[in-house]
Amino acid sequence: MPGRIPRSHPRYASLVTREKLVQGAKEGIVAWEGLLAHGRGEAFDYLLGEHTVPEAAEASRATAAHLLRAERAVISVNGNVAVLAPAEVGELAAATGARVEVNLFHRTEERVAKVVDLLQAAGIPDVLGLQATARIPGLASDRALCAEDGIFEAGTVLVPLEDGDRAEALVAMGKAVLAVDLNPLSRTSQAATVAVVDEVTRALSAMVRFAKELRNDPAAQEEALTSYDKGDNLAGVLRHIGERLRLASRP
Amino acid sequence: MPGRIPRSHPRYASLVTREKLVQGAKEGIVAWEGLLAHGRGEAFDYLLGEHTVPEAAEASRATAAHLLRAERAVISVNGNVAVLAPAEVGELAAATGARVEVNLFHRTEERVAKVVDLLQAAGIPDVLGLQATARIPGLASDRALCAEDGIFEAGTVLVPLEDGDRAEALVAMGKAVLAVDLNPLSRTSQAATVAVVDEVTRALSAMVRFAKELRNDPAAQEEALTSYDKGDNLAGVLRHIGERLRLASRP
Repeated sequence: MPGRIPRSHPRYASLVTREKLVQGAKEGIVAWEGLLAHGRGEAFDYLLGEHTVPEAAEASRATAAHLLRAERAVISVNGNVAVLAPAEVGELAAATGARVEVNLFHRTEERVAKVVDLLQAAGIPDVLGLQATARIPGLASDRALCAEDGIFEAGTVLVPLEDGDRAEALVAMGKAVLAVDLNPLSRTSQAATVAVVDEVTRALSAMVRFAKELRNDPAAQEEALTSYDKGDNLAGVLRHIGERLRLASRP
Repeated sequence: MPGRIPRSHPRYASLVTREKLVQGAKEGIVAWEGLLAHGRGEAFDYLLGEHTVPEAAEASRATAAHLLRAERAVISVNGNVAVLAPAEVGELAAATGARVEVNLFHRTEERVAKVVDLLQAAGIPDVLGLQATARIPGLASDRALCAEDGIFEAGTVLVPLEDGDRAEALVAMGKAVLAVDLNPLSRTSQAATVAVVDEVTRALSAMVRFAKELRNDPAAQEEALTSYDKGDNLAGVLRHIGERLRLASRP
């Protein structure tokens, strides 16, 4: 399918991403609701100019530092993330020592197995999530299910493309919650410890780069954490969007 | 499915709409890409406060006037519109004398037939689109297909949730193109004669109301057309979004 879109198309990356997700939905890896969620993200990315704003890079750097310093960190992966950035998830896990857990909002055993397979095929040896042995307190239904030796016990969780209810529940458990969410006003961005407002593939690539850069430099890790202020960061992101709208509204 | 969402939920309308579309996708009425497109719309609607801003009402009034004054007007309906607002499409056609044509971007004969059935079940007697007898010039593939005695020969076309390429092609044919699109910066909104930046069900309901109000009042129709300035109107919409973002960015 991606072959149909000419590389010269001004929105090539966005169109290829869309086709990957539709293909993932057809194969039962991406949930129907995952397509709606991606569309919402696309709209915000469009308003950000479809590139990584400086605030997003800063937040990805703080995320890399969190993952490097955590005793037990987990990267939570859903269908959309698995389809869009399996290689980046693997590289980030390798660079930081974090574990990878498949954790779905619209959970079925079949879909969990498909997402685990996809990540293993991308070279991630040890993927948690098939055995849901614990529950996140305060969440109804299967959304609460997670691995005891994974998300449940982790002090730090990276949640790219997370739902607001679950992000809040993870924060309530006392975890450092590192979110990737293109909506700076979402409950996930508001609840998270670090909120990276960036497209997920760009964000994870940046985190890999920062993790390699910070890996052997505890002082720089410390600086990446202390210099990040979420309120200031999100206000900066909103200013970029506002500026773009103001430019567009000039006759 | 909608029964699962409590009516007291603050985002009840949005969640019910989402479930209608997912259901429509499962039934083959809504295209997969239609879910992505709806997600993009949701994000913009969120930024508008999920209500009809005054500029949108003004544009819907101008749209009603266009439809009433047109010699041959057609309302173009795709899978998303058919699932979300079949009754409103029927009422608007009845109130203005416009014809209804099913015109799909991701066209298959099967999907056209399903959308036609859905509209007929909603009480619209005469639905065009099953026989694609003409092509919109300048568009490749099946996206160009339309009915000769429908969209092809109409001087005025209402295109709720249209694709940018086709909106531009219809404008190039010399038609008055009336768009409903939640993205004020989209190519559709930029190309259209009238751009209604509103959620499609709210917009079509408003158009029905305005059509009834203006039906026997040619002077008011004239005023609705001449007082509408698309550039000013869209600039006003962008200011609403900008204002909402500024409020959100205050610490």
